Amino acid sequence: GAGADNDLYINQAIVFIEDAIQYRSINHRVDSKSLWLYRWYYSRTCQWILSLTITIILALAFIEKPSSLTVTSDVRYRLPAWNPPCGLTESIELLCFLVFMLDVSVKSYLVGWEEFWKNKWLMAYILTLIVSLTDWIVSLSFLCTEDVRIRRILRPFFLLQNSSMMKKTLKSINSTLPEMASVVLLLAVHLSLFTMFAMLLFARTKDGQQDKEWMVYFRNLPDSLTSLLVLLTTANNPDVMIPAYSKNRAYSIFFILFTVLGNLFLMNLLTAIIYNQFRGYLLKSVQSSLFRRRLGIRAAFEVLSSLKEAPANAQQSYVNVGALQQVLQKVEMDFRCKQAIMRSLEVCSCDQLSAAQFQKLFEELDKDAIRQHPPSPDYQSRFMQKMQFAFGHPYFGYLGNVVALANIVSICVVLVMDADKQPSERDDFFLGAINCFFILYYLLEMLLKLLAMGLKRYLSYPSNRFDGLLTVILLVLEIATFAVYGFPHPGWRPEFIGLLSLWDMVRLVNMLIVFRFLRIIPNMKFMALVVTTLLDLVKNLRAFAGILVVVFYAFAITGIMLFEGAVVPMGNIRYIGNKLNTSCLFFTLFLSFKEKCGFMGLFGYFQAEVIYCLLYLLSLNLICRWAKIYFVAWWLISSVIWVNLFVALLLENFIHKWDRRCHREPLSDIEYQRTVELMFRDVLEEPTEEELMEKLHQHPHLQLCR
Amino acid sequence: GAGADNDLYINQAIVFIEDAIQYRSINHRVDSKSLWLYRWYYSRTCQWILSLTITIILALAFIEKPSSLTVTSDVRYRLPAWNPPCGLTESIELLCFLVFMLDVSVKSYLVGWEEFWKNKWLMAYILTLIVSLTDWIVSLSFLCTEDVRIRRILRPFFLLQNSSMMKKTLKSINSTLPEMASVVLLLAVHLSLFTMFAMLLFARTKDGQQDKEWMVYFRNLPDSLTSLLVLLTTANNPDVMIPAYSKNRAYSIFFILFTVLGNLFLMNLLTAIIYNQFRGYLLKSVQSSLFRRRLGIRAAFEVLSSLKEAPANAQQSYVNVGALQQVLQKVEMDFRCKQAIMRSLEVCSCDQLSAAQFQKLFEELDKDAIRQHPPSPDYQSRFMQKMQFAFGHPYFGYLGNVVALANIVSICVVLVMDADKQPSERDDFFLGAINCFFILYYLLEMLLKLLAMGLKRYLSYPSNRFDGLLTVILLVLEIATFAVYGFPHPGWRPEFIGLLSLWDMVRLVNMLIVFRFLRIIPNMKFMALVVTTLLDLVKNLRAFAGILVVVFYAFAITGIMLFEGAVVPMGNIRYIGNKLNTSCLFFTLFLSFKEKCGFMGLFGYFQAEVIYCLLYLLSLNLICRWAKIYFVAWWLISSVIWVNLFVALLLENFIHKWDRRCHREPLSDIEYQRTVELMFRDVLEEPTEEELMEKLHQHPHLQLCR
Repeated sequence: GAGADNDLYINQAIVFIEDAIQYRSINHRVDSKSLWLYRWYYSRTCQWILSLTITIILALAFIEKPSSLTVTSDVRYRLPAWNPPCGLTESIELLCFLVFMLDVSVKSYLVGWEEFWKNKWLMAYILTLIVSLTDWIVSLSFLCTEDVRIRRILRPFFLLQNSSMMKKTLKSINSTLPEMASVVLLLAVHLSLFTMFAMLLFARTKDGQQDKEWMVYFRNLPDSLTSLLVLLTTANNPDVMIPAYSKNRAYSIFFILFTVLGNLFLMNLLTAIIYNQFRGYLLKSVQSSLFRRRLGIRAAFEVLSSLKEAPANAQQSYVNVGALQQVLQKVEMDFRCKQAIMRSLEVCSCDQLSAAQFQKLFEELDKDAIRQHPPSPDYQSRFMQKMQFAFGHPYFGYLGNVVALANIVSICVVLVMDADKQPSERDDFFLGAINCFFILYYLLEMLLKLLAMGLKRYLSYPSNRFDGLLTVILLVLEIATFAVYGFPHPGWRPEFIGLLSLWDMVRLVNMLIVFRFLRIIPNMKFMALVVTTLLDLVKNLRAFAGILVVVFYAFAITGIMLFEGAVVPMGNIRYIGNKLNTSCLFFTLFLSFKEKCGFMGLFGYFQAEVIYCLLYLLSLNLICRWAKIYFVAWWLISSVIWVNLFVALLLENFIHKWDRRCHREPLSDIEYQRTVELMFRDVLEEPTEEELMEKLHQHPHLQLCR
Repeated sequence: GAGADNDLYINQAIVFIEDAIQYRSINHRVDSKSLWLYRWYYSRTCQWILSLTITIILALAFIEKPSSLTVTSDVRYRLPAWNPPCGLTESIELLCFLVFMLDVSVKSYLVGWEEFWKNKWLMAYILTLIVSLTDWIVSLSFLCTEDVRIRRILRPFFLLQNSSMMKKTLKSINSTLPEMASVVLLLAVHLSLFTMFAMLLFARTKDGQQDKEWMVYFRNLPDSLTSLLVLLTTANNPDVMIPAYSKNRAYSIFFILFTVLGNLFLMNLLTAIIYNQFRGYLLKSVQSSLFRRRLGIRAAFEVLSSLKEAPANAQQSYVNVGALQQVLQKVEMDFRCKQAIMRSLEVCSCDQLSAAQFQKLFEELDKDAIRQHPPSPDYQSRFMQKMQFAFGHPYFGYLGNVVALANIVSICVVLVMDADKQPSERDDFFLGAINCFFILYYLLEMLLKLLAMGLKRYLSYPSNRFDGLLTVILLVLEIATFAVYGFPHPGWRPEFIGLLSLWDMVRLVNMLIVFRFLRIIPNMKFMALVVTTLLDLVKNLRAFAGILVVVFYAFAITGIMLFEGAVVPMGNIRYIGNKLNTSCLFFTLFLSFKEKCGFMGLFGYFQAEVIYCLLYLLSLNLICRWAKIYFVAWWLISSVIWVNLFVALLLENFIHKWDRRCHREPLSDIEYQRTVELMFRDVLEEPTEEELMEKLHQHPHLQLCR
């Protein structure tokens, strides 16, 4: 009947508008049941459960068998890690796989059979699940004693496929790969030509004393290649040229040429290329997001316009305002946006909306979120008004900054004076007393500000929240200290009582005070700009970070599998092998490895550290050849490509921000929330009506009336 | 009389046009004698003498007393450097000063008294000369035994003031300084806050075993600051965190936070800021060059238009074509440009030129130099024509590349096979034979190409010149080898005869063959783009490199003066001091210094090497505090600021080039010669008529009639 049809159209419109808000594709089934399933699938609970499952399956690596999650990384001291019994992690894994299977079947059903075959991500998802389950069965049938577990390497895929932003970013990176490959090829040519040159230049001579350079770095082709590759990372920078340089200064010309061409030119060229290429692709992906949003809105308009049975003018279709209001009530969206749209609907006071008007209404979604701070309280008494004026004034904030600076300086002075004292000679009285005074001032400042601004306005500023929270923590710590150790007095250094010693308490208080000093940031213009750029960057960087996590996880699991059992604690003995011994000195390697780099501790280290460390070891020729490939690949991906992508994004962000700062002065009381979409808004092109309608007519499930 | 006036006007026009060509200011005296002096001063001979003088005075440092220009840098082996007698270098210096005094007085006279007071560079020039002469007199009166010689540090100023491009670049860098200072301030805040945090975190504990971290890196404020500063350069990257990390993995969070914030964010932010700021200023400076050119042309027009006594129409002024031709004959300019202007004058066939026509005529100066290759010879016989077609075809070039590659591969194979052989076991027969064959092929290729293209066309391609030169050198070497050692035969390894041993000859030949392989570059599109970008960069970078030389020179001389006598050869003894000894271990320091870094050898080393080396030493706390400041300043200037400027310039260059490549396909037979002016041509604004005339009326010496 018409009523059922109308209900369906309303539901379709609701889903399309929600798709537009979330930048989702509208190419899914649109019958009543599917719409219900679709809304259920994209409900907050369902998505939360999915994210939790992904987190759990990724986190399993920390407790699974060859894990090394212990306090210390030193193999000599650390206790053996806890080994879960066979079947525990496997049953958790099975639960996760069941959730994923449910996920993939709902997704596949919703996109429909035809779309399914076009969607490579879904196919890969199913394939990954099949491989993982097979591997899981194999694992159980071996009673968890098998070594190779492919499913662990595949795990990060679940994280990847669940984020559309990450998929988009991956696509962008993928498009940049040919250009990057060219530069990497160029680097390879550079490296191989210089290697041949080096082998000819530093050849073995008849006089055995003279060819130190040949002995250590250029003995044969793999050695020479490694030496120069490591020189490219600057890890063995002065060392590699010292023997030749001390023979004749002119040899340095070779190394200087190599470094200038490789490090200064080619590496920076890589930055330039990635910046240039990636800029375009980021813009493109944002453009396609905009298209999805416009398309969703347009689809909602089309289904709503077919709602009314009597369209008098066949030329143009209109939407009833009442129907739109009905839809808006049910749509899940940001409360502020909904309010704004409802308000403009009331202001317009027409009861028919054209397609253009309809689109315009939803442009509210693209706007910056503007946050107004609540007003200060109105006091009646003249005295209170004066107080309010005095303590609400910016100068009072500046005074607070000066006091915080004074506190920092005093801590610094005490630190310098106490630097060489024995712990038993130390007297905490002075520091305790001044900290007590300063914390009282901070409390007073907070209370006076609360008085002047009122609780709501006070809390609406992030800097005040930061300030207040730290002041409260400091106060609690100080009261706890006094409760346990009494008030400060000369010679105040009692023994250890309770959870923390007095010395630790004082240190903690001091650290928090240093941290609280960061409140000065918003008061310095340039600093504020830099910090907001960095915060934006962190927001826009989530997709990148996710991809890095995916790669890191896969590499770490591969590393654990490859080098499992290579690390065996050998007590206090450190055996540094003869450098010229060509056999794989695995014990040596991974013992020194553990102590020096601690690589196996998953996520335990920042990548750059690992890399320098690894490459340093590489340069010592302690690693056999096939392990070299693993580390060089990791260096290329993380250090060269990822860092350059990061620099490109930072350049992009900063230059946009800087340009905008010059164009308009930001209003003092308004805060903008920027996303990568908003950053490019000036450059984006609106899709035309024809493009939208053509795309709508290609929809696999929606049959438009006209 | 009118004739004398006319001569003056003609001469003025000549000088103004020459000013326009060289982008010089036109604010100089314009009377007959001054004009003669001006042309003499800017003549090639005079400028060449000036450049030579600057080179000589800068090169003096290599032979002056505390120099260390010896073959080896190892203090244990090297012979004492030659010490020139007192008075030798001083008299050369006096000669240079005399030339500079002449230079400064001519320059000052030419700009005129009024302009002189506004010109800070001239004033600084005179001041530098006065200080240098005073120092010279002091030096002579002490019979060259005094230690402090200020005039040496001032020497690079003479280089700086002589190049207008360098002065301009310095101005640009100067304008970027406030922004850079902000980031450096931010870095300082970051560093100091983290230092305080570190001192609180890694404080001395009662258990002496547990505080390795405190002992080595965070003992007191200067130590902590140094440790973290060095961490910022990644020189002590894994080492600094190992003691804390092996105690508890969680300590790594501190170091990760510091590195991410400092290295990843703030350092890259510096790149972004420098890129952003510098881009604008470079454009601005190029814009002002354009203005100077247009102004010079306009001034020439104005003086030529007042040449004729009967200007009928007072509204507009005209220039006689005959007068212009007379001027053009005497102007010193590029022959190609002059021809082009003369030709368009003939084509125009009018005898009066308006201001706009006059400007348009000289736009030839801004155009890219297009070079046409001479035609191939025309052969009569059919056979020769076929030969010409076959060997002039690109495929013949590709065949040559394949043969060169085969040669490289064969050398590589021989190198790998011979890697572990003793020099006495080595047999040079195989390599000698194949190289002989390949060199014969190269000779044949060159002759056939010469036949097909003719000498002129062959030489007009840079790749052919490169190729031919190397082939000739290879041939000469090969013939010399055969002449001395006979033809290759099995067991061909005779003893040392003549200048070079057979083995050295073969090595040299191989190196040249590897070098010759670079001929493939123009055949690969992406490689060609990269190489032309790099070549452009080198052209545009001359001013930067000059400034780097100036800074490097000043730093090196200061370093020599500060640390003179600190290096004393101590035979074979290497005394590595106790790290915790706080006294300045200068002997230790500079002995290890010499062997490890060889810093004192002026220009002997590339900066990055020195820096890493120095910072590594810094981290070992071997350097006392006041020397630290010197090294940190050098690190900031060369490694941080200069490298970032370089990256900015590379980004700018590459992105411009890339964009242009997309816009238009370069014609195959035409080569463009690009300069920084041409790079920005699309973005530059033409100065308006009013601006030009206003500037002309402000000229201090030129009185325009109207």
